Amino acid sequence: MILPEALQNDLPQRWQKIRTTLFTESTDACLISTNVNLLYTSGLLFSGYVYLTPDSIHYFVRRPVGLQGENVHYIRKPEQIPEWLHKLSLPFPKRLFLEADEMPHSDWQRLSDLFPYIRYENATTAIRWARSIKTPYEIAQLRESAHRQAEAYRHFPSVYKPGMTDQEFTVEVEYLLRKAGNLGLVRIFGSSMEVYGGSVLAGDNALAPSPYDFALGGRGLHPSIPVGQNGTRLEPGHTLMVDMAGNFNGYISDLTRVYSVGPIPDEALRAHQVALEIQHYIATAAVPGMVCEDIYDQSVAIAKQHGLAHSFMGSAQQAKFVAHGVGLVLNELPVLAARSQEVLQEGMCLAVEPKFVVPGVGAVGIENTFVVTANGLEKLTLCDENIIDLLG
Amino acid sequence: MILPEALQNDLPQRWQKIRTTLFTESTDACLISTNVNLLYTSGLLFSGYVYLTPDSIHYFVRRPVGLQGENVHYIRKPEQIPEWLHKLSLPFPKRLFLEADEMPHSDWQRLSDLFPYIRYENATTAIRWARSIKTPYEIAQLRESAHRQAEAYRHFPSVYKPGMTDQEFTVEVEYLLRKAGNLGLVRIFGSSMEVYGGSVLAGDNALAPSPYDFALGGRGLHPSIPVGQNGTRLEPGHTLMVDMAGNFNGYISDLTRVYSVGPIPDEALRAHQVALEIQHYIATAAVPGMVCEDIYDQSVAIAKQHGLAHSFMGSAQQAKFVAHGVGLVLNELPVLAARSQEVLQEGMCLAVEPKFVVPGVGAVGIENTFVVTANGLEKLTLCDENIIDLLG
Repeated sequence: MILPEALQNDLPQRWQKIRTTLFTESTDACLISTNVNLLYTSGLLFSGYVYLTPDSIHYFVRRPVGLQGENVHYIRKPEQIPEWLHKLSLPFPKRLFLEADEMPHSDWQRLSDLFPYIRYENATTAIRWARSIKTPYEIAQLRESAHRQAEAYRHFPSVYKPGMTDQEFTVEVEYLLRKAGNLGLVRIFGSSMEVYGGSVLAGDNALAPSPYDFALGGRGLHPSIPVGQNGTRLEPGHTLMVDMAGNFNGYISDLTRVYSVGPIPDEALRAHQVALEIQHYIATAAVPGMVCEDIYDQSVAIAKQHGLAHSFMGSAQQAKFVAHGVGLVLNELPVLAARSQEVLQEGMCLAVEPKFVVPGVGAVGIENTFVVTANGLEKLTLCDENIIDLLG
Repeated sequence: MILPEALQNDLPQRWQKIRTTLFTESTDACLISTNVNLLYTSGLLFSGYVYLTPDSIHYFVRRPVGLQGENVHYIRKPEQIPEWLHKLSLPFPKRLFLEADEMPHSDWQRLSDLFPYIRYENATTAIRWARSIKTPYEIAQLRESAHRQAEAYRHFPSVYKPGMTDQEFTVEVEYLLRKAGNLGLVRIFGSSMEVYGGSVLAGDNALAPSPYDFALGGRGLHPSIPVGQNGTRLEPGHTLMVDMAGNFNGYISDLTRVYSVGPIPDEALRAHQVALEIQHYIATAAVPGMVCEDIYDQSVAIAKQHGLAHSFMGSAQQAKFVAHGVGLVLNELPVLAARSQEVLQEGMCLAVEPKFVVPGVGAVGIENTFVVTANGLEKLTLCDENIIDLLG
């Protein structure tokens, strides 16, 4: 398959990371069928399967026609994979890993009939952990997405017009992002969360609880998409929180900034400063070896010190995390959350998003995308972090 | 749960349709967990489950906080559902239907442990067929989406500027659709197809095969989203096919129109007329009782009569359908496809999309959203069906 050389050279590192997290025996193999992991292991998307063993990789392709390259084999249906292994003189695996947390049950049933008398196990979590530590090529991609996203954000205040609704503002910033090259699609792990582009929260809509496990909710424009902007008019004394995804090359960076319509109460400005303080703490503390839960607990402790525990990450419904991985999906591992014993490692990429809600004003806080380095977090999304007054 | 009265009154018809397609015994039940079917059966989205029996419905809600109403019960985890049934003096089912084609295998495993010693079966296809016949309320929703989408399409030629790329044109028409109230999100059945808003095909990019099972392909802007526009500059003598989804209220209408940059060869104009002829045939023939395969076969036969079988629905890779259901997802049942023995029924909603590719020119053809009535198809997406010359 024809890929850019830097990408082609990057893929073997990814296969090796999956092998390390997944395989313990030379007779193990993994059959990948979900789009995100097909993209991760092959550098492109096709309809079909990637078959990964401890020492080889094969591509079984249904569509599109015309893919060429080493170990590319065309099939009509997955039942042809065992025939192909036979033809290729590859032994059948004794244990086959499938993406059980992502693939439909019916697909699991079908694939788990391919080889008789072998064991089938769940690949999902291990591959997500493999993916959580980015290769240098992947970090460069995320850096590019983050840079282009931050550049676009600088123009956001210019779209404001008095009397606008949150949705009118959203449409304008989506338009800026698309003109800057944003691919638009936001992939999310798990079938229960859905979003179109991102979320914009004006005034008390920031307090509305949502069915989704995002940092904050918002009622949404329609019951069929119950998150984010809901048509609220932007009123003096309110904030506007803009949390749009940045997907410029398949890698998704995450960035939130807050705007105000004229002056806002000191209480909201103070809460914003506390969010920046929590971000500063995390950026310094989050070195390789740190336990995710400890960073989350300390973030909550800072909010509490300032008397803001009740409004940290929501009010009626509070999200129980302060940061999440980003990459090919918006919600990669790790999650800096209550009860997470996972340990940070160099090369992980995190969206850190301490946020507060202030009744009668709206949401305040920040979100930036970082990469974990030996010395702590390096910020990839660089633009003004103050609350910008849209009135001037 | 507080819903508009017309929607509240519509829901019992939907429950009854699922009961009719799914249940044969009074001890059957269905546990719904996917977003589309939660929305279908409850009129809104929440994190949790709908439990449907032959004579009752219960809502087991995890999030958001604060939902109120008859038969709304809060849970933290699905394992509490059996306890709730006990509390409510509801018998355990003897057979429980789960959405096996849509839910992750791990979720199936977890839910199929809820009740010991009962049978678990697949609900997906039966619910999709129940959903395929729309209620009058649903038809009104789709009619509204279709109407607003068609209104927006009328303004599409106005965004053209000489020298534009297909992506620049796409961003402008997305912007028009969003300003007109398009919610943006496009739900698709099946985890393997992904799209952002729709697809725009300029010139020979219409010939590029895609991994997805859409009517036509297109290379896409980036390997991570391999469908639709690819940055092709709009050149004289080429066509531009615009196929954007219209989601104005959760119901998705589908509409394709073709534009040209200046005059295009007669061959392309003739192929467009053949597409209109196939559409006319289908609009007349598709009455309740017709078999889907027969309509597809006759459509292929018309293409063949005109010597265009080789370029019908693609060339190197041809889609094997000419129409598909629309509704809460872009690809509802039925599909007017080879080997489909399914029979049309009044109230089904169809996107009919005969299309051809013409090398050196681009894609031509049409797509409209229809509802099946006793007398044939009623068209919901009304706007000029000729190829409109963008140069005026």
